[in-house]
Amino acid sequence: MNEGLRAALDPRSIAVIGASEHPDKIGGRPLFYLARHGYRGKVYAINPKRTQTQGFPTVPSLDDLPSAPDAAIVVVPGEAAIAAVEHCARIGVKACVTMTSGFGETGTAAGKAAEARMVAAARAGGMRMIGPNAQGLANFGNGAILSFSSMFIETPPMDGPVGVVSQSGAMSVVPYGMLRARGIGVRYANATGNDADVSVAEVAAAVAEDPAVRLLLLYLESIADPAALAEAARIARDRGLPIVALKSGRTAAGQQAAQSHTGALANEDRVVDEFFRQHGIWRAADLRELVQCTELYLKGWKPSGRRLVAISNSGAVCVLAADAASRLGMPMAALAADTKAAMAAALPSFATSTNPIDLTAALLTNSRLFGDILPILARDPAADAFLIGLPVAGAAYDVDAFARDTAAFAATTGKPTVAAIPQPSVAAPFRAAGIPVFETEGEAVAALAQFAAHHERMRCARGGDAARPLPVAEFHSLNEAESLAVVSAAGLPVVPHRQCHTADEAVAAMAAIGAPVAVKGCSREVAHKSEFGLVRLHLNNEAAVRAAFTDLRHGLESRGLAFDGVIVAAMTSGRRELMIGAHVDPMFGPVVVFGDGGKYVEVLPDAAMLLPPFARADVLDALSTLRVAPLLGGVRGEPAMDLTAFADAVVAVGQLMLGKDQPIVSLDINPVVIGSDGAGCVALDAVAFVGK
Amino acid sequence: MNEGLRAALDPRSIAVIGASEHPDKIGGRPLFYLARHGYRGKVYAINPKRTQTQGFPTVPSLDDLPSAPDAAIVVVPGEAAIAAVEHCARIGVKACVTMTSGFGETGTAAGKAAEARMVAAARAGGMRMIGPNAQGLANFGNGAILSFSSMFIETPPMDGPVGVVSQSGAMSVVPYGMLRARGIGVRYANATGNDADVSVAEVAAAVAEDPAVRLLLLYLESIADPAALAEAARIARDRGLPIVALKSGRTAAGQQAAQSHTGALANEDRVVDEFFRQHGIWRAADLRELVQCTELYLKGWKPSGRRLVAISNSGAVCVLAADAASRLGMPMAALAADTKAAMAAALPSFATSTNPIDLTAALLTNSRLFGDILPILARDPAADAFLIGLPVAGAAYDVDAFARDTAAFAATTGKPTVAAIPQPSVAAPFRAAGIPVFETEGEAVAALAQFAAHHERMRCARGGDAARPLPVAEFHSLNEAESLAVVSAAGLPVVPHRQCHTADEAVAAMAAIGAPVAVKGCSREVAHKSEFGLVRLHLNNEAAVRAAFTDLRHGLESRGLAFDGVIVAAMTSGRRELMIGAHVDPMFGPVVVFGDGGKYVEVLPDAAMLLPPFARADVLDALSTLRVAPLLGGVRGEPAMDLTAFADAVVAVGQLMLGKDQPIVSLDINPVVIGSDGAGCVALDAVAFVGK
Repeated sequence: MNEGLRAALDPRSIAVIGASEHPDKIGGRPLFYLARHGYRGKVYAINPKRTQTQGFPTVPSLDDLPSAPDAAIVVVPGEAAIAAVEHCARIGVKACVTMTSGFGETGTAAGKAAEARMVAAARAGGMRMIGPNAQGLANFGNGAILSFSSMFIETPPMDGPVGVVSQSGAMSVVPYGMLRARGIGVRYANATGNDADVSVAEVAAAVAEDPAVRLLLLYLESIADPAALAEAARIARDRGLPIVALKSGRTAAGQQAAQSHTGALANEDRVVDEFFRQHGIWRAADLRELVQCTELYLKGWKPSGRRLVAISNSGAVCVLAADAASRLGMPMAALAADTKAAMAAALPSFATSTNPIDLTAALLTNSRLFGDILPILARDPAADAFLIGLPVAGAAYDVDAFARDTAAFAATTGKPTVAAIPQPSVAAPFRAAGIPVFETEGEAVAALAQFAAHHERMRCARGGDAARPLPVAEFHSLNEAESLAVVSAAGLPVVPHRQCHTADEAVAAMAAIGAPVAVKGCSREVAHKSEFGLVRLHLNNEAAVRAAFTDLRHGLESRGLAFDGVIVAAMTSGRRELMIGAHVDPMFGPVVVFGDGGKYVEVLPDAAMLLPPFARADVLDALSTLRVAPLLGGVRGEPAMDLTAFADAVVAVGQLMLGKDQPIVSLDINPVVIGSDGAGCVALDAVAFVGK
Repeated sequence: MNEGLRAALDPRSIAVIGASEHPDKIGGRPLFYLARHGYRGKVYAINPKRTQTQGFPTVPSLDDLPSAPDAAIVVVPGEAAIAAVEHCARIGVKACVTMTSGFGETGTAAGKAAEARMVAAARAGGMRMIGPNAQGLANFGNGAILSFSSMFIETPPMDGPVGVVSQSGAMSVVPYGMLRARGIGVRYANATGNDADVSVAEVAAAVAEDPAVRLLLLYLESIADPAALAEAARIARDRGLPIVALKSGRTAAGQQAAQSHTGALANEDRVVDEFFRQHGIWRAADLRELVQCTELYLKGWKPSGRRLVAISNSGAVCVLAADAASRLGMPMAALAADTKAAMAAALPSFATSTNPIDLTAALLTNSRLFGDILPILARDPAADAFLIGLPVAGAAYDVDAFARDTAAFAATTGKPTVAAIPQPSVAAPFRAAGIPVFETEGEAVAALAQFAAHHERMRCARGGDAARPLPVAEFHSLNEAESLAVVSAAGLPVVPHRQCHTADEAVAAMAAIGAPVAVKGCSREVAHKSEFGLVRLHLNNEAAVRAAFTDLRHGLESRGLAFDGVIVAAMTSGRRELMIGAHVDPMFGPVVVFGDGGKYVEVLPDAAMLLPPFARADVLDALSTLRVAPLLGGVRGEPAMDLTAFADAVVAVGQLMLGKDQPIVSLDINPVVIGSDGAGCVALDAVAFVGK
């Protein structure tokens, strides 16, 4: 972690520029918190009108301090804020948190220019700046609360293993509040605001380095700094720290709102999904999913798989749990024969010894049932995770014993074990025993499923360098012949073809390639040839080829489109038309898309995405998620298709996109006709845009 | 409602057979509840060992009562329970609730036989029986608690507008408990158990008739009685009563568990979906969804559409709300220009007057902002529903004013208005003002979306008679020629073809139909001809047709399969291969499935389902939900396909399936080739199974 970020999270001294006596003012609340939460460093208030502020020594100017403070908080308005940032940078402050708003987030040129001046001053002085428009940073591990959030008054803090890092102020403290209400300690609630200098991802990386943090929650509206986020993810993976991120602006409506909120540049949502997957970050669908698994993460369980065992005193809960498990990709564990036999011996005859395990109301008369069957289950290697469902438990049940037995079981097995208990009085002893409790079985299974899937993702994350080529400003389109040449040079098999500028050349090409042939009008100005009637198929005689040449030339020239000759190509058949596309994302760099192809690829999309570089195995994994996957694997007695050849072609496109010689801005190879296993694949058509 | 169900829900007198002094015993708890919850009818305890039980007069036998009680509760075990039911039926008891278990749910022949004896006795005496294995019925409107659930001790009841009807005991009282914890009154918590006589659907229909019930929640493990459920839905629709149903056993794992639980026969899940849709019942995905919208339903709002307005003091909440709305099919309302102008005048410059509306922290200094902008929004006809998001609100906010303003706004507009508020102290005044409050914006939007979609479903529900032809026990397959004849007779256009038993006939058929033709082996024993190589396409000369005849005959006979000649058919081309299938569901009767067709229909399914009878418009609606829908409508400059002709073909199959002459057990018409608008569609192949 660099010195500036260290100073922001763990400052040896803090100056508050614009300090207020009133703890409800922005300039007063940090002082109030610093006093209240045991910050041990030096605190200075800067205010020309006072000598003491909330008990802290107060001086008129930074220049009056004995030495430059490690960190500064800037709350003074407008121009004074810029001056304060400049002053801090000049005297050697290492980090400042600029809470003042009215800069880049206004969307005005003046606001952006003022923000740029602050950044320039900070960088010139070697200072890092959080903000402007930042709610600020709160570290309850050392009491360094450089934040004005009111939430720490509403919901008292407790240091703990969770770090929350957010661009938004609200989304830094709402998860804090939800977790604190569940009794979970939160060390960091950091809100970075406009990210003019320090990005939310950099703060995330710094928090990930804190060994006391065992779960990192992020709220992002825009990923402007993928390299820093990749680095945060790498640090986290290296020490097994899970990161769960809520990236909003998933939809067009959300992106529009984000632009109004923080001027966030829209990320292409599928690229974000793939980036997170690649780096082992779990993407929460919403605020609920951001926090739902917290207790499971903090238990430190390492799930061995997804096979679930559900146990309840209600048959209905067994059915609902099995439904939820199937829906969420958690198969019900198939218990071993001796497990079932041992359970059957322990259970009354009307209970079920198959999974899900219905203890029935027999639990009412024999509270030892739980304690009797859990050790039996603990020995079965087929079970990866456990759900205890107690929808109803009256006074006659020995709930404390159930909770004790469950906690002992979880401790012995080290396997994720959760409970679904709607009654608060029944839930309490389970929570007290350290078992994560959900109100419904659906929520409990969803948490187990996220937990297991996230661990799989962390194990499989390939990480990778996020410093990728970004789009070039000037580019132009290639015609089909040039595009196919680029594709061929990259190592992809391309259909035998010739570019022909005269009818004679076209006839000669047919003779060389062998009839029948396809003849297509070639123009750098036309991407979708078939819509202009520029494709002639199955031509097998000279007259037809000559006629086609004349027609195609006329078809282009009569529309005022460039005529780059015709392409004469072999007629190639295969099993299925697939596609490979690629483009350069403005923030994440090259992106490769591949899947089912053909004419209707836009209206019937069925494609996967990878960020290069990637390997054949990554492509094969991704292909297995497609709707068309069963077909590719061979159905109805058909052989499998040549997925290896196709995967290698996709890998080659990934390499091509990373190449520096002639930057490819976008590439659309469609169709790529794939044959049966061993028969390879071949690109029939391509459209490329390249940088100048 | 029949007299037996009336007596079960509103008995004038009750006898408890097997009454216990102990309120924690099954025979004691109903007496305890009847005394506690103000039941005003006569209560008799039946117990030969006592003269008084929990203060109620006690006699040795039903014969000792002055007259037959209206209702009886049976808790005595085994054979005594059967005798008690017989006794009740003999003396004229109108309804009995048999709580005793150990009957059909054991899955044993003895258990089922004993259950059948009870049912036979009840029916012979004109008595209705709930159960056996029933937790029983609870009506807090009149204190008739014929239930042994402990939940009414754990969570005190309050009469109210919600009725819960469930097969499972737990799932009758868990929703009760979740709603009571939210302060909502629940009138009914009914659990019907094995449904040996009275079905859960019959009880639902009876509850739906109670005018005090304004929301009906169902938990079903099996729909064994669709006609009664259709009737319940009709009663509910007639008076605008929403029904939300949790039907478990959605998945194979869940169905297996349900079979262990209640011996429930599995329903085909997609048929259940369609049945619910047709009857206006909302199907909850899980327990959370079953109860999440309750406050909205009880407000009596009638949503006019799905267009959402979101208002928050946090930009992040605006973004998350817009994301959730898009994901859940609720577009953000496009506000009128004068609305935006009026808002811009009321809001500070840095707040956004577009939707979602970000009030920013300005709300902190001006608590009137809410009160100022809500009346402006109330005038805009573009808004159908409203979300207020308050993620953080400290002591400085006038939360009571926000709550008052919001409640006044909701009352004025009559439009669904909910809040997303994680802080309990901020949520409380909103709840007190009658605004439904959720912890997160995702949950709030999900509730609004369900509410709006359910009202659309209720408006569009076509209902219909659920008394449908059920499968016949004996059936046989038809060959292609016979199947096409059935299809043609039903009014579908079928490809010109002839069944030919000799090569000469086949040649003559080609001459009559016109070359080229398709020649296909015809056998009632082969459903998938292409897998056996039994299809020859594009034949255009006599030699080819003769060779095909010989080959196809050999191909069938060499495998020992029946040879029913060959089909010579016109080669027909069109725009897309679709399919129409139909079968008879064992509980719901005929089901028609239609959608994208061709060879890979099983591995790339893209089909809709309807229960006949239905009209062309129903088919067109259903087609619009298919993945392939854009293609059918015409893309990339292509004309639309002839959906009207296809829809009429689907309607004809629906009529065919309802016909009584020759019951069709299943029918698979694939492909049905569809042409451009006006060009119709034509069935190329069909396989039918018909009853004997």
